[in-house]
Amino acid sequence: MLIKNGLIATAGDLYQGDIYIEDGIIKEIGKDLNIEDSEIIDADGKYVIPGGIDVHTHFHLDVGIAVSSDDFRTGTIAAACGGTTSIVDHIGQGPRGTTLHDPINHYHKLADGKAVIDYGFHGVIPYEVDDDRLKEMDQLLEDGIESFKIYMTYGQMVHDEDSIKVLKKAKEKGGIIAVHPENNDTVNYLKKYYSENGMTAPIYHAKSRPEECEGEAINRILNIAHLVGDAPIYIVHLSAKLGLDYIKMARDRGQENIYAETCPQYLVLDEEKYNLPGTEGLKYVISPPLRNKANQEPLWRAVREGDIQVIATDHCPFLFEKEKEAMGKDDFTKCPNGAPGVETRMPVIFSEGVMKGRISINKFVEVTSTNPAKIYGMYPQKGTIAVGSDADIVIIDKDKEVTITKSMLHENVDYTPYEGMKVKGYPVMTIVRGKVIVKDNEFIGEEGYGKFIKRYKNDELVRF
Amino acid sequence: MLIKNGLIATAGDLYQGDIYIEDGIIKEIGKDLNIEDSEIIDADGKYVIPGGIDVHTHFHLDVGIAVSSDDFRTGTIAAACGGTTSIVDHIGQGPRGTTLHDPINHYHKLADGKAVIDYGFHGVIPYEVDDDRLKEMDQLLEDGIESFKIYMTYGQMVHDEDSIKVLKKAKEKGGIIAVHPENNDTVNYLKKYYSENGMTAPIYHAKSRPEECEGEAINRILNIAHLVGDAPIYIVHLSAKLGLDYIKMARDRGQENIYAETCPQYLVLDEEKYNLPGTEGLKYVISPPLRNKANQEPLWRAVREGDIQVIATDHCPFLFEKEKEAMGKDDFTKCPNGAPGVETRMPVIFSEGVMKGRISINKFVEVTSTNPAKIYGMYPQKGTIAVGSDADIVIIDKDKEVTITKSMLHENVDYTPYEGMKVKGYPVMTIVRGKVIVKDNEFIGEEGYGKFIKRYKNDELVRF
Amino acid sequence: MLIKNGLIATAGDLYQGDIYIEDGIIKEIGKDLNIEDSEIIDADGKYVIPGGIDVHTHFHLDVGIAVSSDDFRTGTIAAACGGTTSIVDHIGQGPRGTTLHDPINHYHKLADGKAVIDYGFHGVIPYEVDDDRLKEMDQLLEDGIESFKIYMTYGQMVHDEDSIKVLKKAKEKGGIIAVHPENNDTVNYLKKYYSENGMTAPIYHAKSRPEECEGEAINRILNIAHLVGDAPIYIVHLSAKLGLDYIKMARDRGQENIYAETCPQYLVLDEEKYNLPGTEGLKYVISPPLRNKANQEPLWRAVREGDIQVIATDHCPFLFEKEKEAMGKDDFTKCPNGAPGVETRMPVIFSEGVMKGRISINKFVEVTSTNPAKIYGMYPQKGTIAVGSDADIVIIDKDKEVTITKSMLHENVDYTPYEGMKVKGYPVMTIVRGKVIVKDNEFIGEEGYGKFIKRYKNDELVRF
Amino acid sequence: MLIKNGLIATAGDLYQGDIYIEDGIIKEIGKDLNIEDSEIIDADGKYVIPGGIDVHTHFHLDVGIAVSSDDFRTGTIAAACGGTTSIVDHIGQGPRGTTLHDPINHYHKLADGKAVIDYGFHGVIPYEVDDDRLKEMDQLLEDGIESFKIYMTYGQMVHDEDSIKVLKKAKEKGGIIAVHPENNDTVNYLKKYYSENGMTAPIYHAKSRPEECEGEAINRILNIAHLVGDAPIYIVHLSAKLGLDYIKMARDRGQENIYAETCPQYLVLDEEKYNLPGTEGLKYVISPPLRNKANQEPLWRAVREGDIQVIATDHCPFLFEKEKEAMGKDDFTKCPNGAPGVETRMPVIFSEGVMKGRISINKFVEVTSTNPAKIYGMYPQKGTIAVGSDADIVIIDKDKEVTITKSMLHENVDYTPYEGMKVKGYPVMTIVRGKVIVKDNEFIGEEGYGKFIKRYKNDELVRF
Repeated sequence: MLIKNGLIATAGDLYQGDIYIEDGIIKEIGKDLNIEDSEIIDADGKYVIPGGIDVHTHFHLDVGIAVSSDDFRTGTIAAACGGTTSIVDHIGQGPRGTTLHDPINHYHKLADGKAVIDYGFHGVIPYEVDDDRLKEMDQLLEDGIESFKIYMTYGQMVHDEDSIKVLKKAKEKGGIIAVHPENNDTVNYLKKYYSENGMTAPIYHAKSRPEECEGEAINRILNIAHLVGDAPIYIVHLSAKLGLDYIKMARDRGQENIYAETCPQYLVLDEEKYNLPGTEGLKYVISPPLRNKANQEPLWRAVREGDIQVIATDHCPFLFEKEKEAMGKDDFTKCPNGAPGVETRMPVIFSEGVMKGRISINKFVEVTSTNPAKIYGMYPQKGTIAVGSDADIVIIDKDKEVTITKSMLHENVDYTPYEGMKVKGYPVMTIVRGKVIVKDNEFIGEEGYGKFIKRYKNDELVRF
Repeated sequence: MLIKNGLIATAGDLYQGDIYIEDGIIKEIGKDLNIEDSEIIDADGKYVIPGGIDVHTHFHLDVGIAVSSDDFRTGTIAAACGGTTSIVDHIGQGPRGTTLHDPINHYHKLADGKAVIDYGFHGVIPYEVDDDRLKEMDQLLEDGIESFKIYMTYGQMVHDEDSIKVLKKAKEKGGIIAVHPENNDTVNYLKKYYSENGMTAPIYHAKSRPEECEGEAINRILNIAHLVGDAPIYIVHLSAKLGLDYIKMARDRGQENIYAETCPQYLVLDEEKYNLPGTEGLKYVISPPLRNKANQEPLWRAVREGDIQVIATDHCPFLFEKEKEAMGKDDFTKCPNGAPGVETRMPVIFSEGVMKGRISINKFVEVTSTNPAKIYGMYPQKGTIAVGSDADIVIIDKDKEVTITKSMLHENVDYTPYEGMKVKGYPVMTIVRGKVIVKDNEFIGEEGYGKFIKRYKNDELVRF
Repeated sequence: MLIKNGLIATAGDLYQGDIYIEDGIIKEIGKDLNIEDSEIIDADGKYVIPGGIDVHTHFHLDVGIAVSSDDFRTGTIAAACGGTTSIVDHIGQGPRGTTLHDPINHYHKLADGKAVIDYGFHGVIPYEVDDDRLKEMDQLLEDGIESFKIYMTYGQMVHDEDSIKVLKKAKEKGGIIAVHPENNDTVNYLKKYYSENGMTAPIYHAKSRPEECEGEAINRILNIAHLVGDAPIYIVHLSAKLGLDYIKMARDRGQENIYAETCPQYLVLDEEKYNLPGTEGLKYVISPPLRNKANQEPLWRAVREGDIQVIATDHCPFLFEKEKEAMGKDDFTKCPNGAPGVETRMPVIFSEGVMKGRISINKFVEVTSTNPAKIYGMYPQKGTIAVGSDADIVIIDKDKEVTITKSMLHENVDYTPYEGMKVKGYPVMTIVRGKVIVKDNEFIGEEGYGKFIKRYKNDELVRF
Repeated sequence: MLIKNGLIATAGDLYQGDIYIEDGIIKEIGKDLNIEDSEIIDADGKYVIPGGIDVHTHFHLDVGIAVSSDDFRTGTIAAACGGTTSIVDHIGQGPRGTTLHDPINHYHKLADGKAVIDYGFHGVIPYEVDDDRLKEMDQLLEDGIESFKIYMTYGQMVHDEDSIKVLKKAKEKGGIIAVHPENNDTVNYLKKYYSENGMTAPIYHAKSRPEECEGEAINRILNIAHLVGDAPIYIVHLSAKLGLDYIKMARDRGQENIYAETCPQYLVLDEEKYNLPGTEGLKYVISPPLRNKANQEPLWRAVREGDIQVIATDHCPFLFEKEKEAMGKDDFTKCPNGAPGVETRMPVIFSEGVMKGRISINKFVEVTSTNPAKIYGMYPQKGTIAVGSDADIVIIDKDKEVTITKSMLHENVDYTPYEGMKVKGYPVMTIVRGKVIVKDNEFIGEEGYGKFIKRYKNDELVRF
């Protein structure tokens, strides 16, 4: 396959050229390549970029009161249609008492034969940590699970004393710890307080998880990581300026292996959504919640200046009518937390970021693909357009104007938080390992084409 | 009684004048006062200051493996000889399941008829918080207990969810919460780690409670206080720059009712003490531990610029030979935590602070007497030299040179951390409510002279 | 004279008591003083404070196109009626080629026999600095001129190379340098640019002196002061947050002898005044200009936390109709710069500060009286209520409500920037060296009662 | 030409591949390329990087008392041997009264037919600015001169009022202003002071230009740039942390188009060099001077984190014996300022940066080649390895160990500041537009091969 004359954009470069693909791998990049018998794709005037990598999805996540509505088939189809060619899923931790391997094994079954793009799994630290589970980390690191998640809140909360053990292990063995940072006690107190006092409308969801809960937890885990010799930390879904300030403060004392991820919802939506009439606000019940609009500009700047390295989605859809509204209409605390986003990430950020001049096309590639690949042990197999890399490529027509609406999306859920948003620029072709699987927003790939991504350990990585 | 010609120093002023005392109260301040039949004290050339107030002592504190060796008699005699005329004790919390009143009642019995200077008690939040205990706070606030302590570590640790309740109550009812800030989990992990790996020398005491433990906890409680509408917080024994940075960051966002206390040991001693030969380092096993010397200059500056409001002592002596050395010689974790200091505070800070030009005499008075009185509901009865105030007065001879040594001190313990330190300037007279109780380092007062100080609620206070 | 039962407030204290005055000096402070043959003033329920000290006035200032309309008689009467008992004037520098003594001598003639309250002069560095002028500084310091002003803009601008010499001299000899900080080149460029392009309305006055001009100059002079071993610097009329940030940054590197003054106009008025209809905006043509309202809260906080030490006025009135409006109506650059304020400072700050809970009564005294006295070599003669100090005392009735309007004021000018402002609390008596000179807003003193204040050199000062 | 199997490193990527060059342009990048009749260069195991771009050289610079000893032939040969394939020279400004075009025309004559690698010129603002000179900027921007330099010190100093005009012009027309930031007055004062007081040894060179001089000037120009709507600013030879702090502070207020350059000498040498015995210290007389070693780690971190974008050299050699020593031995102020560095930049930074783990190979490429090309209008023609770009390529053998010594270098001067430094990794081949001009440290190119680089205007640039 030969992609001709595209404007090739990587994290570092932007130039016009041709890409020749053989056996799913990028074989040559050149000017005016002439290769016999190639299928020709004309990309003249379009951006040709590394396929998006979404390192924060929740497919088929069982949260007790509901299961997220996208499985590995529908979810990866949606991802592909939105210009994403790999995902790394934050898997459910299973029941109390479980091992680290059990949920991984469970998710292999959920994904294998279903996913249409390549996928990996973050490990998850379940509730308590003991020597057996620490040993499991060693094994999983060998098996391509380079990252593990700890939750600082929810039922599956990991206590500080266990966090320290997990961070130490990660530091020693080349793993990285992804952290959901919220102070559990204050969230619980506030939820209870609002709920018991009749303040049950969606806006109280935001009030029950204020930015101090997030900021505090971020600062706590950064100090703990510092104590064990600067263990690598990855903060998921950073939503507010306060946490960012703590991150910068930690970096200023020399703690450099701290990574931060934000999501489109925190960059373009804000807490006014919770004040929409009726039950509409329940669509946005996610954790952390949407914030005051004043946080958006600092987050965009942090993306631009490299203080935030990744934009992922925290895609975790629940059916609005049957689940979010049905359960949450009388009390926000009953509403399952999560919203869709895997399909809209690339177009929303391209349009609001690149087309509005907030970030360059290179920065767009960096935060949606290259950095996730580097941080999470997939680079240079994934995350760039270079010879030898997997031919995971997306073509964006920067002139295509689209009004986002549920009906055009492939996510298996009955709403999108971005309903009615006009975007300029949209993916028109998605190629995974040399195979076109989406064309003009139509999925033409096949179920089960996706392969598990065995990820490198951190200490084998190219540093950046 | 008439104190003639002294150089009268308050937090705000410095001038020469005479002080006339009647009925234990300052009745007049004047130039060349001539009052018949007065006992005359000549203070010419000497500083006449408000008596020191030490708001952080632990008399007769039962820590399970030992009881601190100064009771309310010996402890207050030592305090008086060192120029301190009031103390507020951080009392022991008693057994699990206790109320808030029980320990207060117990300490009344320990102090009444014994103390030689005036005294108050901080309440203490014991382990768990329920509605009954929250109601007790209301009652105690009426009874002159304006402040309550929470520990973020140790057995009596209060969890965040309970802290939020206590802070909210304090905010509503005019109390203030004093906080011992250390991250419990990491301290426990590190202690266990060092102990189990044979690193049991005194220096590992410092390593097991690094400044990140303190800083993290400070930042956490400040965020929690912010969440409940900026509840008043008082950080005890701040020992390192990191915590100070978090305090300043919180103040910069407008959280102004945050107070911080440091102690002489953090200003003039450093962690090299733990490397002294033999068991000598055990003398300095206190929590938080002595820090790297680089922290001292930032702490002094913070005192000077008002970022730290109080210098207290955390006086908690244990016999060196029989207790600290006997228990800790093979393992620092077995050594009871604490050291004496109530008697040396004023001379050490006067000499190292005022005489070395680090702070003015006004700042000295402010941090050793006026601010503690204002923050803790005793002003203007205590904490200044003004008409109508209690005649709690100390006379300092700024030319008196003393080498501090155990034998000259009155603390009921067999060592002083300041052994051999040369100081310039020393208290030569201590007056409590108009009665001279110490003259030239000799106690001439009487047991039981001290009275309980019923402290005002915070919202009745003069703001400063 | 005996002032009975007032609520006596100093920078450090607040208590009820009586003050006995003899020979213009505070002789005794006591409870229930009973002194025969005394004139009794009943201050029950009122604040009794040290008289205000305004260290930034411009009486009879010749700015070339006009002369400020208050002379030392009218100006000091207005000051006294507003609760101010001492002023230190920033005198005009006279013609190019002048010495340092000439303008001082000239101002002695202007003030002697005219002023109704005590007064001092800041020296002024005129244009260029040579060895003779540096020697004059030595002499003037002996003669009670402890401070010298440099302008970083205007015709009398002092260049950096001369500033360094002056700062060095001040450092060596115990003086302090007051600095008007604005970047001359950019102000000139912008004034010219707006004027030439027809943007001549009052709002362009503000636009031609943006906060970057002030901030830049502040940072520059602070660095220069740092270079000569931290020479003492006093920033006059700080108007915006940016300059404050640079001041804090300098203090954080240990440069502690930096003082900052703001004025009521920057705390309670904002740049919207320039958009008032017609020529009204010209009333507020001052330099630096009024700023965006967002600067006010940071300035108040800086006062509260001690980052700003003084509130003075920069009182420099020009007749509105005959001067400001007549000259400036077609072009803001022609309008003489300055506005009245010496009479309204104390009531405006008391009402907006103390009564609205932004600062305590102690802080009010500190920034309007005690700090100016300490910084500028007048303490403890001036600036406090203590025995031995001059009996400069003001009584404030905190319940008196007043609507500020030109007709009630004594300033010799036809408008006040505070027209219509309602204040709560107003001075009801002003006493200078034991003599009541204002009672219920009526001046009852006598012309020429004021004495020149010979100020101490900085190195003879009480440190604070 | 075909470069086989190298480890190709760009600012964003690192992968193994082959590069095929045709007509001086990179035609193809591929895996196992097989192109008939190609000259094959085996790069197996070696880094293949974009040729270095040094945007701060001074060839043939006449400083009045001397002329820098490298002309465009010797200087570019040295550059090439050190792995640099393009330079942009900061040209001399010529005599007072000159135009902007005159020196450009003069330098064209100096470079054309002499340079062995490609070259550009920064324009220079000479002394004063008038309308004619501002119009010249327009013309020069069209002619490929995208950047202009202003000096804030030296004889050719540009005053703030002129800087504002130049910055405004650059902002409007797509240029960028490079700034030499030092406070002229304080430098002059201090030089005079030390010289007149007999403090003439080399160390006083450093003391006469302390970091406050640099920091102040940086902050000043950043504020001026902010005033004209954030004109693009490029700070040359940043040497100390203070200036960096001001840069970060400006970026934090949203002023994002500020670029900063440092040089190897500030990263690896320090002011102790000035205390070397005899006249040895004169070798390091450069402006700004070498700094206290404590500045190095913050500068490295700023490179790593993107706060410094470029490492250039300020190459400006003077003969040690005949010039620096002869003139400066009795008085540092007589010594011509400048030192060689164009040849050692790449090996020193590769060895101290990449090999010592301070920066990644990608960051190395970014700061030595890609960023300079992007900032200064040469990208993607220069600054990367991508199809369509000039084949300016350097091959580094990372295992080659070299002890730097004068005799191995090609700079036309009798010393190197890096004498005796051991480096690991060295360029073994330099290719300019497809032609090998250096092989194993031997120059094999030809005089005059270099071409003038017509640089794009800033607003035509790829943003990054």
